Amino acid sequence: MSLTNLGTKQIQEKDRSYVFHPSTHLAKHSRGETPNRIMAGAEGVYIWDTEGRRSLDGFGGLYCVNMGYGCKEIADAISRQAHELPFAHVYASQGTEAVARLAEAVVEHFGQNVQRVFFGLSGSDANETNIKLVWYYNNILGRPKKKKIISRNRGYHGSGLVTGSLTGLPFFHKFFDLPLDLVRHTTTPHHYRQAHDGETEEAFSKRCADELESLILAEGPETVAAFIGEPVLGTGGIVPPPTGYWSAIQAVLDKYDILLIADEVVCGFGRTGEKFGSHLYGMRPDFVTIAKGLSSAYLPISGSIIGDRVWSVLEEGTEKHGALGHGWTYSGHTLCAAAALANIQVFKERNILEHVRDVGPYWLSRMKSELEGHPIVGEVRGIGILSAVELMLNPKARVPFAPELQVGVRAAAALFENGVIGRAMPHGDILGYAPPLIITRQEVDIIVDATAKAVETTYRALKSEGAI
Amino acid sequence: MSLTNLGTKQIQEKDRSYVFHPSTHLAKHSRGETPNRIMAGAEGVYIWDTEGRRSLDGFGGLYCVNMGYGCKEIADAISRQAHELPFAHVYASQGTEAVARLAEAVVEHFGQNVQRVFFGLSGSDANETNIKLVWYYNNILGRPKKKKIISRNRGYHGSGLVTGSLTGLPFFHKFFDLPLDLVRHTTTPHHYRQAHDGETEEAFSKRCADELESLILAEGPETVAAFIGEPVLGTGGIVPPPTGYWSAIQAVLDKYDILLIADEVVCGFGRTGEKFGSHLYGMRPDFVTIAKGLSSAYLPISGSIIGDRVWSVLEEGTEKHGALGHGWTYSGHTLCAAAALANIQVFKERNILEHVRDVGPYWLSRMKSELEGHPIVGEVRGIGILSAVELMLNPKARVPFAPELQVGVRAAAALFENGVIGRAMPHGDILGYAPPLIITRQEVDIIVDATAKAVETTYRALKSEGAI
Repeated sequence: MSLTNLGTKQIQEKDRSYVFHPSTHLAKHSRGETPNRIMAGAEGVYIWDTEGRRSLDGFGGLYCVNMGYGCKEIADAISRQAHELPFAHVYASQGTEAVARLAEAVVEHFGQNVQRVFFGLSGSDANETNIKLVWYYNNILGRPKKKKIISRNRGYHGSGLVTGSLTGLPFFHKFFDLPLDLVRHTTTPHHYRQAHDGETEEAFSKRCADELESLILAEGPETVAAFIGEPVLGTGGIVPPPTGYWSAIQAVLDKYDILLIADEVVCGFGRTGEKFGSHLYGMRPDFVTIAKGLSSAYLPISGSIIGDRVWSVLEEGTEKHGALGHGWTYSGHTLCAAAALANIQVFKERNILEHVRDVGPYWLSRMKSELEGHPIVGEVRGIGILSAVELMLNPKARVPFAPELQVGVRAAAALFENGVIGRAMPHGDILGYAPPLIITRQEVDIIVDATAKAVETTYRALKSEGAI
Repeated sequence: MSLTNLGTKQIQEKDRSYVFHPSTHLAKHSRGETPNRIMAGAEGVYIWDTEGRRSLDGFGGLYCVNMGYGCKEIADAISRQAHELPFAHVYASQGTEAVARLAEAVVEHFGQNVQRVFFGLSGSDANETNIKLVWYYNNILGRPKKKKIISRNRGYHGSGLVTGSLTGLPFFHKFFDLPLDLVRHTTTPHHYRQAHDGETEEAFSKRCADELESLILAEGPETVAAFIGEPVLGTGGIVPPPTGYWSAIQAVLDKYDILLIADEVVCGFGRTGEKFGSHLYGMRPDFVTIAKGLSSAYLPISGSIIGDRVWSVLEEGTEKHGALGHGWTYSGHTLCAAAALANIQVFKERNILEHVRDVGPYWLSRMKSELEGHPIVGEVRGIGILSAVELMLNPKARVPFAPELQVGVRAAAALFENGVIGRAMPHGDILGYAPPLIITRQEVDIIVDATAKAVETTYRALKSEGAI
């Protein structure tokens, strides 16, 4: 069966008639009032649609196509495994070579104080697994009340009922009755937006830790089981933590015997220039959530890496009570595991980590030199190959634009006209970037120049409308 | 990279050291005390391990490899799409030909009163989506209290915190604080186990409906949003519904304006001999959960098919409030969609439905003639290519074996020794079967003969131990 039979209009008609798209205005989509781009092919950092329009994918799909499009090694591994054995379940001690080797590669890649990997399909289901295991852990330890989870405002941890509750963004809560009561949210570690006038990063980090401690004490430490955070805030706006943040947070968690879940779905596998964000910031997680970069999105696979102290209690639990009743049919899916294994191999062979350490700082310095000081640029920030430009009505006084102006969405549209896909992040007027890690300095230049032009275009349009 | 480098012992060592297996005794697995079979290849209904041991896979993986192993058309489609475009997201109205065509194929395949498909990865996440949308639906309709979900004891709907709560099996609840409070459970529709002495199937079905109505009235109909059920109970023991069950249930749901979620993860795509279990039993679902048979497990993909009345409210919601904030990065994964599309094509081309309608009844009649009346066989049941043998200490008086005897597990082990994989279902002493739908009459004979032999072996062993 060929997938190139149909013309764009035919595909769009089917799409509008049958597909329920995520995060989409459903009625407008049905009526054909949204830009219904049909993607057809891709190579390196470029992706194109059925009409031949080619874009530099500055968001790498959704921060996930880390090794870039058209990676032959991964595609070949998929093809081989698909013809050999696409699927064997891994319930009840059954295994496959692909899964055993992948688990070893992941544990060795993380490299400190971790024991095992539970494989799932998405970052959301991996966090679901984590929360289940946090509860199981405290039940086995005889602490049935220690169950609440603390997350951060503007954190993103998934879109399920529980994982969407961990997420601290109203867009994912409204009309879904979220967050559920088992979650509490604490301070967003965003110095530019949240710091008091004159407050240093270090002082702000200490305040974040103090506010976390106050929340724990108000709830009762005996009721708080775990803290979940992305090393670098992702969907909440791509915000690296302020200096000293994670060590201050870690100290509070240690004091009250609270587990740490590092949600590394975005940061893991090299995006920050370290193997994991946890390494960069000295976090000591008990659970590490992985997805996206694990397979570069060639196939869906996620994982929960389990730390030493949790693993020993899980083993103890099964000694006392028998098999642990948790799993997805497609946990450790053979073909997905083979894709991830090939992806990690490519990551190592091409020395992607060194590449990110070269290109990342180059990008940030170029982005800052082109955009800082522009009349509507509040902050240019980033780490590794992860970056954002936050637009503000008054950058110094930190006054945002009125949401109905949709400045971020308009800037992203202007950027797209300049040949680059960036993402209008859902909280504030923020252009976000997370292209494939294989991006070159020359391609970075294209993104930076297109961004500077798009911001200027947006600024002039707002001025001519009298919005500034 | 080749995946056939390592010997069995080396793979097992990695597996025991790094893999966290679903539904497994973790401590025993680590110590090498569980049978750690490493699967290596498969063809048709047969699967073999690294030591060359070949088994007839009477459970089709986990009821999922419907088109059988080694299906070249699906593997070729995967290979082609992997090299062309493995992944493009489908957020915010972006699409691909594979997803548009798959959604059309699914909606047409279901064929009645449904509008759109939301794609996920697993049955669990599809049910998570369903519950979120049920809540959204009632919020948009201005019924904020109408939120509880009713499921059945022994239903299986997933393994997450909410979806595991829908599941009505203690194995998936204990030590995880499940079920959560948003779920209520009602009567298991298993006539053999639950009916009063002399109660007909029809009378029992009416009682199930009456008990559902009593529960709804006790909770308050204004608080009950949806009812979820598998057309045929799956993991709870492979139990086709008693005569008249679904029409009696449907009438109660209609009376109290309660949505119906048909969990077709097992039954969908031909397993019962109809395209969907809903068609077989005249259900009129508002949501249809699909997974397994959608792709025959070659790649992970699931879906929520949305019925007419729900879809119009979802569209209305976005008219009022803008884009609906729900989705997984890998929703509508391009490569997984291409695999599912090829799978549905094969399903049609090979006329699998006709095949199931031939082989299914043959199997059930052979299974009944070989096993009914055996001193420890309580019930032989099935529909299509889905069947179970329930073992009992006293079949007539419906007295089960003591759980610690592990009679089901022992019978499954004896079956395995006879060359056939069957599953010891987690609730009762039940051998379950759900092989690939392409199974032939000759292969059915192998399963039936191996089962008869395994049951006899188990019976003799129990007798010689004085357990009977």
